[in-house]
Amino acid sequence: MSYFCDRIERMTAYVPGEQPEDPGVIKINTNENPYPPSPAVMAAVRAVREDHLRRYPNPTSKPFRCAAARLFGVTPEMVICSNGMDELLRMLIQACCDAGRPVGYPTPTYTLYSVLAETIGAPTRGVPFPPDFSLPVDPLAATDARLFLIVNPNSPTGTFVPVEDIARLAGQVEGRALVGVDEAYVDFARDNAMRLVRQFPNVIVMRTLSKGYSLAGLRFGFAVAPEPIIATLNKVKDSYNLDSIAIAAATAAIGDQAYARATWRKVVQEREKLVPKLRAMGFDVLPSQSNFVLATAPKPGAGAIYQGLKGRGILVRWWDAEGMSDKLRITVGTPEQNAKLVDAMTEIIAGATGRGARTGCS
Amino acid sequence: MSYFCDRIERMTAYVPGEQPEDPGVIKINTNENPYPPSPAVMAAVRAVREDHLRRYPNPTSKPFRCAAARLFGVTPEMVICSNGMDELLRMLIQACCDAGRPVGYPTPTYTLYSVLAETIGAPTRGVPFPPDFSLPVDPLAATDARLFLIVNPNSPTGTFVPVEDIARLAGQVEGRALVGVDEAYVDFARDNAMRLVRQFPNVIVMRTLSKGYSLAGLRFGFAVAPEPIIATLNKVKDSYNLDSIAIAAATAAIGDQAYARATWRKVVQEREKLVPKLRAMGFDVLPSQSNFVLATAPKPGAGAIYQGLKGRGILVRWWDAEGMSDKLRITVGTPEQNAKLVDAMTEIIAGATGRGARTGCS
Repeated sequence: MSYFCDRIERMTAYVPGEQPEDPGVIKINTNENPYPPSPAVMAAVRAVREDHLRRYPNPTSKPFRCAAARLFGVTPEMVICSNGMDELLRMLIQACCDAGRPVGYPTPTYTLYSVLAETIGAPTRGVPFPPDFSLPVDPLAATDARLFLIVNPNSPTGTFVPVEDIARLAGQVEGRALVGVDEAYVDFARDNAMRLVRQFPNVIVMRTLSKGYSLAGLRFGFAVAPEPIIATLNKVKDSYNLDSIAIAAATAAIGDQAYARATWRKVVQEREKLVPKLRAMGFDVLPSQSNFVLATAPKPGAGAIYQGLKGRGILVRWWDAEGMSDKLRITVGTPEQNAKLVDAMTEIIAGATGRGARTGCS
Repeated sequence: MSYFCDRIERMTAYVPGEQPEDPGVIKINTNENPYPPSPAVMAAVRAVREDHLRRYPNPTSKPFRCAAARLFGVTPEMVICSNGMDELLRMLIQACCDAGRPVGYPTPTYTLYSVLAETIGAPTRGVPFPPDFSLPVDPLAATDARLFLIVNPNSPTGTFVPVEDIARLAGQVEGRALVGVDEAYVDFARDNAMRLVRQFPNVIVMRTLSKGYSLAGLRFGFAVAPEPIIATLNKVKDSYNLDSIAIAAATAAIGDQAYARATWRKVVQEREKLVPKLRAMGFDVLPSQSNFVLATAPKPGAGAIYQGLKGRGILVRWWDAEGMSDKLRITVGTPEQNAKLVDAMTEIIAGATGRGARTGCS
C-alpha cells in the first residue's frame, strides 16, 4: 500500500531547463530576457525594511493589482497575482478540472499542462495544430474540455495565432468552458488578448514578469479576467502566496513601462536579425512572435549541435523526445550573444560537413 | 453549467487574520515574531544583484537545503522547500489524499487543513482532543485516514503533545498512512519531532521561517522526511516555487542560529510573564509552548474585549465561530507591547464590571 495516490506514483515530473551555476555560460535555453530588470526594481528591493519581512505580506498583492488595473483599464478585482505563472495554471486546472472535466489544448504546447492535469487526475484533450500553426478552433470546440489553455505566442514553437481566433473559440464554448490564454511571451508579439476579458465572461488572460520584465528569478505571474472568475480562483489561492519583496519589485517593474518596452524592442529587432542567419545556415525556422525561435537543425543534427554548443559554453534547449529531437529552441540573446551563437554554429556545421573544419576543434 | 468544479463552487475560502496597513497598530493577532529578522538576512537581501532576478532561481532551493541538512543532521535529499508552509501542506494533501483517501487530524486544529481537503474533494476525519489536549492516538489510528496532520504546538490552542505520542501514532499507522507534523511554532517549545524522520519511513516534519526566524513576509517553509517521501513531493512541486531573494534570505536566516535562538528565549520569557497576568485578570489560559496563548475571556467577553482592544490600536485574534467565540488568541509581543495589552485589558474589564471605569472611555 503506497503512502501516495496512484496517479502521483505513476506520474513523471515536469523537467525544467538546465540552470547552470557558471555565470560565464551564454544561457539561451530558458527564454530569459537578456537585459537586466528596470533600475526601479532594484531600488524597490533595496528599500525593503525589516518590518516588511517580519510581518505577513498583503495577502492579495494589492499594490500590484492596483497598478495592473490602471495599466490594463480594468478593476483591481479583475486581477489575481501568483507565485510565477505556474501557480496560476495549477490553481486554474485545480478549480476547473477533475476526472470528469478535461483540459483541452492545441499541441504541441507547454508540457507542464499535461503534468498538472495528471496531478489532479484530469483527462487531457490535445488537438494537433495544422501545419500552418493556426488555431484549430472547431476541433477544440468539438471536445468535451471544460478548460482550454492556449499559449500565445505558443511554446515551444514561437508561433502566434490571431486574437480573433481565440475570440471565436471563446464564443463557441461560452457557458460550458473557460478559455485561458497563456501570454507568457506576448510582450514580444504584435497583438495580445487582453481586450477579450471585457468581451467574454469565460476568458482569462495570464501573464508573467519572467520574460518581458526580466524577472524570472522573482516568480511573479498574474491573470486578468471577469470578476466572478477571479473571485473563485481566490478561494483556492494560498493565503499569502507572494512575499513582500516580490510584491514591491513587481509593482515597480510594471510601473516602468518605458524601460520594459525598450528591452522588448531590442529583443524583437535581434530576433528579426537572427532568423535569416539561422536560415542561411540551413535551419528551418518557424515564424516567431516570441523571444525565442524553434528551428529544425541541418547536419549534424539538433543533438550534435546542442552538444557542440554546450562544449563551447553556449546553452540552448534540446528535447530528446518524439517530434522534437530534430529541433532546437533558442532564446534571442543580446547582439553579442547572438553573434557568438552564429559563429559557434557555423563552426559546428562546417565541421560536420567537412567545409572549413579546423584541426583541433572538439 | 458552472465554469468551475462543484466542490470549488461550494467551498468557503480560508480567512487569514487581519493585516492592517497602519504601522502604529500593536499587531499581536497572527503570531509574528515581535523581533526583526537577523542582520544577516537584511545583508543577503541587499546583496541581490540584477542577474539573480533576471535568471531563473535554483529550482530546488539547493543552498537552503544544504544548510538545513547540516543543521538537522540529514541529507539534502531529505529536505524540500516551499512557498510558505501552506504550499507544503497543499502539496502533501494533493499527493496523499483524494475522494477515497481521507485526511485525519485532532480537533481543534489549523482550519486551513479542511479547506485544502475540500479543494481536492478529500474527506476529513477530525478526532476531538480530550480535555487535557493530549494526542488521541488510538482514536486517530482507528480512522481510515491516509494522512494525519498534527500541529505541535497546536494552533489555535498553543498546547503541546509529547513527541513520543506522535511516534506511537506513526508506528501504529506505518505502511498505511503518513504522519505530517506541522511544527510552525516548535521553535518556542521544549521539544520537537525532527528525530522521528530517522526512525520512521512515514513521518514528515514541516517547519516555517515565518515565526521563529521573523520572516512571515518572506514566505519560506520546508519539510524534512525520508528520501522517498521528498522525491514524491518534488513531483508535484512547481518547478521554480521559490524566488532567488527568498532562497538567499532564508539560507542566511537559518545560518544565524544564535540570533534566532535569542529571539525565541525572549518570547518564551515574555510568555511565562504574560500568562499569570492574564489569569489574574480572570482569563482561563491554556498552557502554551508556542508564541501565542489561547485564553477564554472574562466579562465583558471575548468579542467585546477584542473590539475594545482594537479601538485602542491593539489587534488580537478573535473568531466569531462555534466553540471559539468566548476565546482570544494573543501573540506574545515585546515587553512593551505586552504591558500595553495588559493595561488596555485591565481598563476594558474594569469598565465592564464597573470597577474603576473612566468617564469618556468607549
